[in-house]
Amino acid sequence: MANVIRQSFSVPFAFDVIFTRGVFEASNDALFKALEPRTPGDSARAMFVVDSGVAACHPEMIEQIESYCIGRDIESAGEPLIVPGGERCKNETQWLDVVVREIDQRGVCRHSYVVAVGGGAVLDMAGYAAAIAHRGVRHMRIPTTTLAQGDSAVGVKNGVNAFGKKNFVGAFVPPSAVIMDAEFLMTLHDRDWRSGISEAIKVALLKDAEYFAWLERSMDRLNARDLDAMEKLIRRSAELHLNHIATSGDPFELGSSRPLDFGHWSAHRLESMSNHELRHGEAVAIGLALDLTYSKLVGMLEGADWRRAVNALSAAGFELFSPLLIDEGGNVSPELMRGLDEFREHLGGELTIMLLESIGSGVEAHEMDFELVNKAVAMLRERALAEEMS
Amino acid sequence: MANVIRQSFSVPFAFDVIFTRGVFEASNDALFKALEPRTPGDSARAMFVVDSGVAACHPEMIEQIESYCIGRDIESAGEPLIVPGGERCKNETQWLDVVVREIDQRGVCRHSYVVAVGGGAVLDMAGYAAAIAHRGVRHMRIPTTTLAQGDSAVGVKNGVNAFGKKNFVGAFVPPSAVIMDAEFLMTLHDRDWRSGISEAIKVALLKDAEYFAWLERSMDRLNARDLDAMEKLIRRSAELHLNHIATSGDPFELGSSRPLDFGHWSAHRLESMSNHELRHGEAVAIGLALDLTYSKLVGMLEGADWRRAVNALSAAGFELFSPLLIDEGGNVSPELMRGLDEFREHLGGELTIMLLESIGSGVEAHEMDFELVNKAVAMLRERALAEEMS
Repeated sequence: MANVIRQSFSVPFAFDVIFTRGVFEASNDALFKALEPRTPGDSARAMFVVDSGVAACHPEMIEQIESYCIGRDIESAGEPLIVPGGERCKNETQWLDVVVREIDQRGVCRHSYVVAVGGGAVLDMAGYAAAIAHRGVRHMRIPTTTLAQGDSAVGVKNGVNAFGKKNFVGAFVPPSAVIMDAEFLMTLHDRDWRSGISEAIKVALLKDAEYFAWLERSMDRLNARDLDAMEKLIRRSAELHLNHIATSGDPFELGSSRPLDFGHWSAHRLESMSNHELRHGEAVAIGLALDLTYSKLVGMLEGADWRRAVNALSAAGFELFSPLLIDEGGNVSPELMRGLDEFREHLGGELTIMLLESIGSGVEAHEMDFELVNKAVAMLRERALAEEMS
Repeated sequence: MANVIRQSFSVPFAFDVIFTRGVFEASNDALFKALEPRTPGDSARAMFVVDSGVAACHPEMIEQIESYCIGRDIESAGEPLIVPGGERCKNETQWLDVVVREIDQRGVCRHSYVVAVGGGAVLDMAGYAAAIAHRGVRHMRIPTTTLAQGDSAVGVKNGVNAFGKKNFVGAFVPPSAVIMDAEFLMTLHDRDWRSGISEAIKVALLKDAEYFAWLERSMDRLNARDLDAMEKLIRRSAELHLNHIATSGDPFELGSSRPLDFGHWSAHRLESMSNHELRHGEAVAIGLALDLTYSKLVGMLEGADWRRAVNALSAAGFELFSPLLIDEGGNVSPELMRGLDEFREHLGGELTIMLLESIGSGVEAHEMDFELVNKAVAMLRERALAEEMS
């Protein structure tokens, strides 16, 4: 009798990412078709969790959701639950508790759905509530921002913030489906419209030089809020993310590497340091500029590619320097540098940072030289001052 | 351009279940070998979470753990954290919060370990804390009870109770390894020694008639606290559970069926109704007796098989009737019957209950007839009265 039994198995996951417009219009059957009944022949059952910001911009939406459910014979588990949009719903754990408690009280079973409608923060929080209640209720994501549509909503992460650390608690659980409706983007404030562009630039820089060139060419249209251009950006960003997750061999990030988190070690810190005054996309733009500049200083990235990348971020309207990057003496802030430790701790194992060697091609590094980070910050500061002067 | 992108991928999981004795003795390398360093060449890092009941029975153990870590160059993330044993640590969410907070404060990264030493409740709670902190820190289980060794520790479930419902919040995350040390069983109280036997009878009844016959033959040795016999029971029960999870095609229970939860719809209710005065194993014995009797009444199970099964539970020393089963009028308690709704809700979809058609062969049913449940309860009550008289 051996002293060890080796257990091994695989768990398959599959979900659809659906592109549509007017998701809650009576004639649109995307949502209805994506909701499976709890048992064959039964009607599907759903509890809607709606971002307060979205509900405010679309005052007719709650009623539209209710009519949609009645018209399509979807059993609605009570009125849509409205939760605050933005990081607030991830910082204040009461909102997580509210969603978990409502799942219990409204009798939402594992084969019912939590349908979250909102920005990335609401989707992260509601998805996490669904992930842990009954050890996993089905959840559907209807992202309403450029950032959530192109980036987080197609991923497998759910979570909330804790101890001042972004996404400190969470779970890797794929959604049952993701529905993208470009019409939600029309009412976004300019900052939120812009916010998804930095993640698009990031994934293009890492994976797809042709897409990056398209972004450069399309920046005027994107800045002029051309919805078709934005839909194309979201489509290509989502595809690159989905493809990465499906083919990386490590969808639940059991290893140390996180190839898509270019620029994110400092971005996450900046968000916390600014008390989330900086949007995720804005912080990512700064984080990218920092790691791009570092890649150049370390001799990895050519000046021409560095210039194209940084200029694309500026052309999208992002600030690439923040006073939070430096301390009183003008050196790189020690609080920012803590982001490297937190990043290593969160991923585990060896520090693994993504840098860029050319447009379309990232490369992993395992340390960052403090003096070069300091120099990169100084360069971004000078660049910002020069722009102010010009 | 299609309107739908289909995403699909599989996530592979593997872990060892190791049988040993004297896990914390300096000469025993099972634990050391099961802990992978965070990075190659580095030492492994572990935070120990210890069941207060185990620590009380083994006053030398905390020191032994610390010596073991020093001797084997395992980096210990602070002193072992002692948490209350039993359902208390799952009912009072403060203990979950304590473990999550310590993971943060002690800098336990995703590639460090939470090593939980204790009964099933402590393993469930600490495993859940590890599952959600950093979206997943590695966790190792060192179960110390017959029930945890033979049953829950080899599974993929982690969680705590909420809203008076067992395991209402949780996550499906396999451990990194499970280490079984039979020596822990020697100090168990009789009730806890016995508690694992009902789950062994359950899995034997469902899957393995030969194993059931062995249990019948071995009951005297098991009752006499023969450690070799108990080790064999645990080994076979663990094998059957592991095999079920690996081959069922649904390790994370995305479907409605839960073939191993024979007798559990009422057992979970009885635990809550008794304020956890009833141990899980004791409640399962009653739940099994109820569903065995129901299986007989519905014409599915022969009287001879029913008798063998119920007698085996009695021979192990379990009470098969509890006053909690009935209301004041002597009918089946409505509060107990709510267990069927909770069971359906927790699993989702159609109600799916496991019944028995013969020893070694379970069969699924999708409804339970109230009158027959009532009759089954009455039969168990009569049987208990008759035993009292004799």
